[in-house]
Amino acid sequence: MHTITNTRLLKVLNNEPVDRTPIWIMRQAGRYLPEYLATRKRAGDFMTLAGTPELACEVTLQPIKRFSLDAAILFSDILTVPDAMGLGLYFEAGEGPRFKSPVRTPADIKQLATPDPETELRYVMDAVRLIRRELNNSVPLIGFSGSPWTVATYMVEGGGSKEYQYIKRLMYGDTQALHQLLEKITTTTIAYLRAQADAGAQALMVFDTWGGVLTPRAYQLFSLQYMQAIVTALRKSHASIPITLFTKNGGMWLPDIARTGCNAVGVDWTTDLRDARSLTDDKVALQGNMDPGVLYGSKQTIREEVQRVLESYGSGGRHIFNLGHGIHQHIDPDNVEVMVETVHELSPAFHR
Amino acid sequence: MHTITNTRLLKVLNNEPVDRTPIWIMRQAGRYLPEYLATRKRAGDFMTLAGTPELACEVTLQPIKRFSLDAAILFSDILTVPDAMGLGLYFEAGEGPRFKSPVRTPADIKQLATPDPETELRYVMDAVRLIRRELNNSVPLIGFSGSPWTVATYMVEGGGSKEYQYIKRLMYGDTQALHQLLEKITTTTIAYLRAQADAGAQALMVFDTWGGVLTPRAYQLFSLQYMQAIVTALRKSHASIPITLFTKNGGMWLPDIARTGCNAVGVDWTTDLRDARSLTDDKVALQGNMDPGVLYGSKQTIREEVQRVLESYGSGGRHIFNLGHGIHQHIDPDNVEVMVETVHELSPAFHR
Repeated sequence: MHTITNTRLLKVLNNEPVDRTPIWIMRQAGRYLPEYLATRKRAGDFMTLAGTPELACEVTLQPIKRFSLDAAILFSDILTVPDAMGLGLYFEAGEGPRFKSPVRTPADIKQLATPDPETELRYVMDAVRLIRRELNNSVPLIGFSGSPWTVATYMVEGGGSKEYQYIKRLMYGDTQALHQLLEKITTTTIAYLRAQADAGAQALMVFDTWGGVLTPRAYQLFSLQYMQAIVTALRKSHASIPITLFTKNGGMWLPDIARTGCNAVGVDWTTDLRDARSLTDDKVALQGNMDPGVLYGSKQTIREEVQRVLESYGSGGRHIFNLGHGIHQHIDPDNVEVMVETVHELSPAFHR
Repeated sequence: MHTITNTRLLKVLNNEPVDRTPIWIMRQAGRYLPEYLATRKRAGDFMTLAGTPELACEVTLQPIKRFSLDAAILFSDILTVPDAMGLGLYFEAGEGPRFKSPVRTPADIKQLATPDPETELRYVMDAVRLIRRELNNSVPLIGFSGSPWTVATYMVEGGGSKEYQYIKRLMYGDTQALHQLLEKITTTTIAYLRAQADAGAQALMVFDTWGGVLTPRAYQLFSLQYMQAIVTALRKSHASIPITLFTKNGGMWLPDIARTGCNAVGVDWTTDLRDARSLTDDKVALQGNMDPGVLYGSKQTIREEVQRVLESYGSGGRHIFNLGHGIHQHIDPDNVEVMVETVHELSPAFHR
């Protein structure tokens, strides 16, 4: 790790000064890139792409080759974990992820396997090892998982959801069963993230995409508590690996997230970074938070909005530039280039 | 209005003391009620149901007959307004609302009609008049509209959306065109709400379902500014009609919403009413905010959660009990009865 060329991300995560604000993009290896679509087409389907280390490596590197980004992030999906737990993940055209065997009853939960990451998820670890080799220490590699709550929503609903009917039935009807499910996912996720770190991931991120659909109390009990368990466990086994937690629509809970002992907190675009920084008091780095929709705008608008995000965070401190959520598929890659170059150009002024 | 029997809702909106917390339920006339499904089946489709005053009246009264609620809300849809503006609203089975002619370009926006509510939307006003007659002053009738921003998202996207691709293209690519669209919708909405008040609606509510997908700055510019215009205009023409504004996922913007001069602010379940109350300082009534998912729970859980919501708001003050968003379609009406009766039973203690 000490031999890495571009250390900006790791420095900000570790509270060391940098020359400019590091930038990477959530879902940077994705459908907005023609080269990604070509590889995806060659793979045939998403699971073959994510499940073949050479292909996962190829798409992970595509945005690194195209843009001057400060980190690579493993190409994978948060639902590889429940897939390995036996749910049978598949993708329906235009329908998003689906599970063949959703988990609905206490009996379903009891039956769940807790897979060994180096066996059932070996393809992920092989991808991490291969990507590290190919990156050749140019930029750090971020590994990731979903939060137990977010993964549980997909496992119980059987796919994406609007009303969270089945998991809320569990939450308000059989709380203990839901906790058992979350514990199993947490155990698996800890092993999974440890294995990614052992395979070579240099930073870890936990995506809590659906924590924001909970009441403040339920967020603490069903989402944050289990992310806390992950941070605590990782700190024991991998004391120095930086961990980022990101709850979408979690703006009001930033102080609680920061208190878990994580290194950074992701912030979506609905919270001003000025407020996020004052709520977390520079105890953690903040990652975000340009509205992904800005990238539909003109080059001039993109430059103005990058400036606005940099200013909202302000000088010094620990800012990792990113979008507030994953990049959309219909974005012109040239606009991404404008965003990246503008961060390079304008952010040094905030680090003097 | 002075002859109305159940005045609890209007009293709380007007900052007068009540014997117990009033309760009504967002989407209370809806698919969770077998009698609604029967009428809906008879009507054939949603637009016939909403467009026939006798049928709209019938379903509006159904929850009032079944539960001891403190208000009726007009059965209609926020998209009747853009339908009257010429977009051709229709509902696809399982797909939600769609428009035959979405609005995407400045030329589309220029062409939009600004309908006269007593002509193109006369069926709504006839429904309001009929419902008032049938209610016979038992409980007040709430009229409503969507917020201009929320209505605009459907008009531009052509239906529901996850990424708001087209409206964000406008926002960041042709801001002036978006403002022109929002102005047209605002003009129409003001006329629409005034007509509802003239027809007999005794309180008004503006639903800003999608304001929460905006940055704090964009929320001010594209959503709140236009809701402010509505409140200001209504105050001029109908000084005494109470107005409630509700931005879903707008917890952090409650103080701004309260400053518009509205009487009440809706709060979804992601914000604790304790925090909402301290942020708005009893300047407005607060409406909400039980997680609709609680109604999947056991009767005991529902009672506990009702108590929790009442306690979170606390004593005195101006609380209107409601869910934090519309009731889900798969809820057992008996569980709704438990919620309503528990509010009746437990809330007097908070008003002594």
